[in-house]
Amino acid sequence: MTEPVFRRMALIGMGLIGSSLSLAARRGGLVGSVVGCARTQATRDTALRLGLAEAMHESPADAVRDADLVILCTPVGASGAVAEAMAPVLAEGAVVSDVGSVKQAVVRDVAPHIPAGVHFVPGHPVAGSEHSGPEAGFADLFEDRWCILTPLAGVDPAAVNRLKSLWKGLGSKVELMTPDHHDRVLAITSHLPHLIAYSMVGTVFDLEAELRALDEQAGIDVIDRREVVKFSAGGFRDFTRIAGSDPVMWRDVFLSNKEPVLEMLGRFTEDLLALQRAIRWSDGEMLKDLFTRTREIRRGVIEAGQAGRFDPREHDPGEPESLGPMSRPYESG
Amino acid sequence: MTEPVFRRMALIGMGLIGSSLSLAARRGGLVGSVVGCARTQATRDTALRLGLAEAMHESPADAVRDADLVILCTPVGASGAVAEAMAPVLAEGAVVSDVGSVKQAVVRDVAPHIPAGVHFVPGHPVAGSEHSGPEAGFADLFEDRWCILTPLAGVDPAAVNRLKSLWKGLGSKVELMTPDHHDRVLAITSHLPHLIAYSMVGTVFDLEAELRALDEQAGIDVIDRREVVKFSAGGFRDFTRIAGSDPVMWRDVFLSNKEPVLEMLGRFTEDLLALQRAIRWSDGEMLKDLFTRTREIRRGVIEAGQAGRFDPREHDPGEPESLGPMSRPYESG
Repeated sequence: MTEPVFRRMALIGMGLIGSSLSLAARRGGLVGSVVGCARTQATRDTALRLGLAEAMHESPADAVRDADLVILCTPVGASGAVAEAMAPVLAEGAVVSDVGSVKQAVVRDVAPHIPAGVHFVPGHPVAGSEHSGPEAGFADLFEDRWCILTPLAGVDPAAVNRLKSLWKGLGSKVELMTPDHHDRVLAITSHLPHLIAYSMVGTVFDLEAELRALDEQAGIDVIDRREVVKFSAGGFRDFTRIAGSDPVMWRDVFLSNKEPVLEMLGRFTEDLLALQRAIRWSDGEMLKDLFTRTREIRRGVIEAGQAGRFDPREHDPGEPESLGPMSRPYESG
Repeated sequence: MTEPVFRRMALIGMGLIGSSLSLAARRGGLVGSVVGCARTQATRDTALRLGLAEAMHESPADAVRDADLVILCTPVGASGAVAEAMAPVLAEGAVVSDVGSVKQAVVRDVAPHIPAGVHFVPGHPVAGSEHSGPEAGFADLFEDRWCILTPLAGVDPAAVNRLKSLWKGLGSKVELMTPDHHDRVLAITSHLPHLIAYSMVGTVFDLEAELRALDEQAGIDVIDRREVVKFSAGGFRDFTRIAGSDPVMWRDVFLSNKEPVLEMLGRFTEDLLALQRAIRWSDGEMLKDLFTRTREIRRGVIEAGQAGRFDPREHDPGEPESLGPMSRPYESG
């Protein structure tokens, strides 16, 4: 048995990430003990029933007392209030971190509350699931995933290294970058995809309701939600999975990383309009060129080992394929 | 051993769907023999090497001679030319079908070439994969998937029933609807999601190239493609998978189903702009309301058994979850 990296880990928030952190850290013998904090009695009861913590507290201050590692696992919009509440009782030498998807806002909200002698090292495990809550956690969540740490200038390198050891022990690959760089990279790779998926699923929700009303009035055939759901294997399904993510968490992400998200959204809309125009004017070359370029990116994702482990049947674009990757298709005429 | 449903199946096109049809139909003893057609020598050689057909032909006419079932497995833009080429030699009583993602355009292009005494029953298995070509096929592809048939008024019901038996034998659930209704349902569930994913992946491709150039000039930190790929588990990965689909096939889909796709795209853009405005003006309520509604839709997909069988780690929204589904989060202040 190796020595634990931290003696006592306090988890503020016991959702998917908090509960997974507890399971993974204890399985790996990385922490001596775990205490938790959750706002509702129901979550505290569930966490205790599942054995996720030795004790569960309602107040962050009660949870962090005597902990040498504190990890905020709340939505990022709550980080400032939590930091303020726990600041007076943080132990000298403790490491404080978080798991939020946005880093500049967390630094802005949390850093001012951190007392001298406590080491604040923001973090973000790029891992998750559409499921929420203490019962969703599992010990493998972080394995082979990246965890990004964004330590500020002047922070104790020993504290960063201890946190790094913890994440490596959890199975993650660790990368260091500035909070600003993190927020731009994640705006592309995570925030914009989520925003688009949420929007798309909302559009479909409204659309089928409206079409159904129109169709019923006109006495013509009706598309209903069950049909949309039934044939969702054609691509829509992947969007619903992303758009099933936690609403409060994601509200906070978009409100906390406004500028990079808005900039990238503007670019996306511009490109989508160009594509719309190409379809309207039957510019098949433009479409095919774009679709060929995007396929290259997909190959990059596969080569980088980030494609995930899918059953081949798990993605269904709902369409036959061409005559083969090496062959030219029959062109009309 | 039950009697085969068809004596001789001719597959025009040997991509993912054609090769999977061969494997699945022969495994189920649903057809007596299989002949294939592919435009390139390479695909014909591969198909023969994999034992996908007793014979492979370059010309559709050679392939369909003496077949009592012909299935077009080419991109939809090629359907008309293929139908024209094979029409003179189609056997009396044969069933002609296809697997295209668009049905009105296929009916428009194919029906005029079908001689009297031949039964044309358009079809669309809502199943696929991001992989293309004869080597991508597998016998389970159609299992538990929907296959939509869109027979025209006046077609022989016996022919429809035979085709239905084939698809059921392949493991699919079969639904009948009009070509018009099919094209509207699929525009929502499949075509729009693909268009958005293609556009999004293209935007990211351009964006990271531009940011890199700007950053390098300014001497500040650089986002490069490897980083975008590395952290793609945060959501972008799901888009790249959809956007890895066959370029020619999808070009044809968008050009062939223009009106429904443009209508739905217009609605999507409108909704996305509303969302953009909500972010800019920090309208957290609007965001949370939308994200809560979309989560309901996801639950519908799961309840309908269309969520797919995922490893829980396979979707990574890249973000911690809230304090639990039943709990209210810490609100700032």
